[in-house]
Amino acid sequence: MHVLSCAIEQMRRQAPLVQCLTNSVVMEVTANVLLAAGAQPAMVDTPEESFQFAQLASGVLLNSGTPSAHQYEGMREAVRGAREADTPWVLDPVGAGALQRRTEFLHQIVTENPTAIRGNASEIIALAGMGHGGRGVDSTDGVEAAAEAARALARTTGGVVAVSGPKDLIVSEGRVTWVHSGHAMLQKVIGTGCSLGALTAAYLGVTRGGSLPEDDGRELSHHDLVVAAHAHTGAAAQLAMYGRTQSGKAVPDGPGTFAAAWLDGLFQLTPEEMVDLVSIEETTEEI
Amino acid sequence: MHVLSCAIEQMRRQAPLVQCLTNSVVMEVTANVLLAAGAQPAMVDTPEESFQFAQLASGVLLNSGTPSAHQYEGMREAVRGAREADTPWVLDPVGAGALQRRTEFLHQIVTENPTAIRGNASEIIALAGMGHGGRGVDSTDGVEAAAEAARALARTTGGVVAVSGPKDLIVSEGRVTWVHSGHAMLQKVIGTGCSLGALTAAYLGVTRGGSLPEDDGRELSHHDLVVAAHAHTGAAAQLAMYGRTQSGKAVPDGPGTFAAAWLDGLFQLTPEEMVDLVSIEETTEEI
Amino acid sequence: MHVLSCAIEQMRRQAPLVQCLTNSVVMEVTANVLLAAGAQPAMVDTPEESFQFAQLASGVLLNSGTPSAHQYEGMREAVRGAREADTPWVLDPVGAGALQRRTEFLHQIVTENPTAIRGNASEIIALAGMGHGGRGVDSTDGVEAAAEAARALARTTGGVVAVSGPKDLIVSEGRVTWVHSGHAMLQKVIGTGCSLGALTAAYLGVTRGGSLPEDDGRELSHHDLVVAAHAHTGAAAQLAMYGRTQSGKAVPDGPGTFAAAWLDGLFQLTPEEMVDLVSIEETTEEI
Repeated sequence: MHVLSCAIEQMRRQAPLVQCLTNSVVMEVTANVLLAAGAQPAMVDTPEESFQFAQLASGVLLNSGTPSAHQYEGMREAVRGAREADTPWVLDPVGAGALQRRTEFLHQIVTENPTAIRGNASEIIALAGMGHGGRGVDSTDGVEAAAEAARALARTTGGVVAVSGPKDLIVSEGRVTWVHSGHAMLQKVIGTGCSLGALTAAYLGVTRGGSLPEDDGRELSHHDLVVAAHAHTGAAAQLAMYGRTQSGKAVPDGPGTFAAAWLDGLFQLTPEEMVDLVSIEETTEEI
Repeated sequence: MHVLSCAIEQMRRQAPLVQCLTNSVVMEVTANVLLAAGAQPAMVDTPEESFQFAQLASGVLLNSGTPSAHQYEGMREAVRGAREADTPWVLDPVGAGALQRRTEFLHQIVTENPTAIRGNASEIIALAGMGHGGRGVDSTDGVEAAAEAARALARTTGGVVAVSGPKDLIVSEGRVTWVHSGHAMLQKVIGTGCSLGALTAAYLGVTRGGSLPEDDGRELSHHDLVVAAHAHTGAAAQLAMYGRTQSGKAVPDGPGTFAAAWLDGLFQLTPEEMVDLVSIEETTEEI
Repeated sequence: MHVLSCAIEQMRRQAPLVQCLTNSVVMEVTANVLLAAGAQPAMVDTPEESFQFAQLASGVLLNSGTPSAHQYEGMREAVRGAREADTPWVLDPVGAGALQRRTEFLHQIVTENPTAIRGNASEIIALAGMGHGGRGVDSTDGVEAAAEAARALARTTGGVVAVSGPKDLIVSEGRVTWVHSGHAMLQKVIGTGCSLGALTAAYLGVTRGGSLPEDDGRELSHHDLVVAAHAHTGAAAQLAMYGRTQSGKAVPDGPGTFAAAWLDGLFQLTPEEMVDLVSIEETTEEI
């Protein structure tokens, strides 16, 4: 079986419980994306509950879009819980570089070695300490410009680093993957990137406790699962825009109907469609 | 007139103003559900404003999904205001059992005798002190398993207790009702359960100040109105999935288009359709 | 070129970055409206980041729907930053009059002379100190009833004052404009008014730093740009409900599908359609 098919089937079978400590703008869409894709959301982010919940969750997402002292404390607790229970966790460094306070917090928390990091080019560059970030959440740098920063972060954290853009770059020790999928309309809907961070935590959630699912004898790695999360997101956008040939559905003509069709796509996407719609380009290189 | 028809007509005629102290994930969808169904939302939840507003509102919803000290204080103020003005209020014990802090708060607030309680099976069991709750907001127990806990809560609070699931159980002193309606797709959209809590407060809002609307000489009880809120939610989901025979609309093929069609259904549903689409099973039994 | 066409083209060309300090119920829809219309949202509202960001942003929105001490402090910082950098800012006095605490805050902040104020009739009347406001966010007064209050606010602030309703009233020194557009379904979707406040900040954002775009030699004024924001919102609603004749799309039959179609309309609307769909009635009068 194709590695992507194996990953999506595992994720859906296990329906991972994803603890999201994320910004207040995208909480609803993030929860809807997880539900549509086949996972279970839990928006638990207080200092009091986050340590306990991260030990119970399959995966944890940290998204720095709402920089409150209270949620930062919750994030530290969640990371402590995740590390104790070997729960995979994802760091989404929203706004890194553009704004001082969250950049400082992110530079601290990244030293805890997240299982994966997902951001746009400007954020990855800023997180690696190599640039000055974008303006808010949109990237002002191209994905290629962040390749060096992604490699540096993969080296120092030992994790997987994903740079989202027209094509996504996924880097870990010894592997570089380009994922060609998606549609420009994703940029016109708030929270599609933030939700991808959460979906990455869902895919990684199938490895909770250290057991990696197997695909014809080969274990699925963290790197494979991060690639699959990006492929799932992108293929669903293609399904939303171009539909199925046998379907009589109208093509979305704007971001409103696209957003609904994209959630449908995340839900409907079959393993075979995911393989067909996404093009993967892989190199094994020294990082 | 059928009791359900009478209830939905009364609710829409009065357009009750519902004060929602709810979790930050579902605020938007909750407001949209109230607007679509025919009520008016007001998301007023601060300690400073909640006492005053609960005296003005037709109904009040307390949902424990965001366990902040600040909102808890707002909830205590809202209950104080609601009790002073005889405003009906609904407790939705999201996450009861799974997490210690909110469970403690819920065990306190339930002693204030909410007009109605609405939760999933795990939450109702935990609120009654009979179990250990689910994982986050999804229930790990079946509705039947919560029947005893629902009866116990109805006895101690003197209110109506509703357990949501594939079929909904509504219990109060001397009455047990099963509501068969809805569609599994409701589970794939965040906030459909939380919104039902708010809609329950809207339906109860028609009794504000103590006057119960009449249906052919028989007064509509709190129990009837809670049943109607569940029927409205469920019938709208059926309308969304199966549509009207004369309509040429496409059937939703995922949770994105379903969510939009469900809001349409809440808005469009006629009293006659509500009666036709929902099956009610009632017993009068000692609780 | 028509002044409306000129305004929408300028706004889309510049894609203004709009800093939104807004209430937690409508953050997501506000961001989606800005993206669909052609602007860039940034939900930056903390005391720590707001001063810095308001100097970087093209426009700033202050919406009082979530009355937290923390966000109020952020708003004061944002206004300080906006005034230092000559960034246009919009005040949306949600809930003015109905609730004491936010009314006090609003009476303070309005003395800082916002570039524009946008609210419903009850809020504008309360902000001008002439009445007692509505219940929550819905207006209990007609637009005409707020004309005198709008004139008074325009006089004291030197800015543009917009009163939203079935037809919108826009007032500034020496000018009174009525905008006929929109559809009643906008009232059935949460956040359409709040999003209009944000879109007003986007349109005003094209004047950042003091340079006004020209239309055939005549400069577009703040007043023109506020009118255009209202026309964009209203025309998109008409496009959503009545569609394009050549389109085979289904007409929305409720607020769920309408909300999606409205976002599509904000995205698709051409300058020519905006001029055709909206009727403008203008008088030059002493205020």
